[in-house]
Amino acid sequence: MAFEVATTAAIDVVDITDQVSATLPDEFTGSCTVFVPHTTAGITINENESGLLADIEEMLRTVVADGEDYEHDRIDDNASAHLRSILLGSDVTVPVTNGSLALGTWQSILMVEADGPRKRRVLVQPASSG
Amino acid sequence: MAFEVATTAAIDVVDITDQVSATLPDEFTGSCTVFVPHTTAGITINENESGLLADIEEMLRTVVADGEDYEHDRIDDNASAHLRSILLGSDVTVPVTNGSLALGTWQSILMVEADGPRKRRVLVQPASSG
Amino acid sequence: MAFEVATTAAIDVVDITDQVSATLPDEFTGSCTVFVPHTTAGITINENESGLLADIEEMLRTVVADGEDYEHDRIDDNASAHLRSILLGSDVTVPVTNGSLALGTWQSILMVEADGPRKRRVLVQPASSG
Repeated sequence: MAFEVATTAAIDVVDITDQVSATLPDEFTGSCTVFVPHTTAGITINENESGLLADIEEMLRTVVADGEDYEHDRIDDNASAHLRSILLGSDVTVPVTNGSLALGTWQSILMVEADGPRKRRVLVQPASSG
Repeated sequence: MAFEVATTAAIDVVDITDQVSATLPDEFTGSCTVFVPHTTAGITINENESGLLADIEEMLRTVVADGEDYEHDRIDDNASAHLRSILLGSDVTVPVTNGSLALGTWQSILMVEADGPRKRRVLVQPASSG
Repeated sequence: MAFEVATTAAIDVVDITDQVSATLPDEFTGSCTVFVPHTTAGITINENESGLLADIEEMLRTVVADGEDYEHDRIDDNASAHLRSILLGSDVTVPVTNGSLALGTWQSILMVEADGPRKRRVLVQPASSG
């Protein structure tokens, strides 16, 4: 299963929990992997609170600074976007019970754009417990 | 399957390998996902050596500094705990053979509290290979 | 399934996509977890471009500095290698369709050595969708 996400800024954090949930069969119990097939976007899980989303963007800019002398920038001027995506990772795997993601009260699945705005694809792959 | 972990400090690294192992059926082969349903705690895998656990805490404080002007702190004074959890991630997936985690000699599954002390829940979800 | 990777430098990024693919049965659809059973190596997914691989190494040295007063260094002089591995994580889980990894155009599975050169093992564990 896959869906598209349109991002609207160079760094953009998008809550994709509802789109992931919509792919899960009603009776399914097991886990599901949420995966971005891109090298300048990542997936994480945290709270969808607007201040925190701004803090995530700022953290990515602090930990991986713009304007460094990156080798990859000689080929394509987006090394920092790749490195920020590596910090976050490309995948999360979440337990699922009877078709519902077993997320905590404050958890949302977040796709983090690091080189936008663009259209991105997200894959969702269930895995059964037996 | 789920279990509780009581943490004892603001930042605290707890070895949960034995609790995870105890949830696995004897004959099970496949993988298992270990997941924290919280936004200010994370899961990682590394060596349970007391000096290293202190270094992990210090790394989290270095990479995500306290006392910054975080937006989320206007709502709840724990933005740094959320950001530290994002660096670590909420889940790990580990291969399992005949009911045993296929961890390396020095590997332990570590739950990292970033906003304690508290009681935390950990979920363990097996996935079968076929 | 498992294979070995020989690394050639203290920090070394090795593309293991082909070795992972070779372990997958032709008809398999589901996901596969790629796992390093080591505490001073990690797994990530990104582009295999030589400049970017150099940038990844440099990022690891920047975010986790050498020469700090790490507690673990009193026991074994490789605390920074452990901490860099924690930043990357020990596992990735990738969707698989008909025996092929559902990676994006620019994605490769990368094993990151943080305390080499050494021989490392990598485990690949499939999980079925039903």
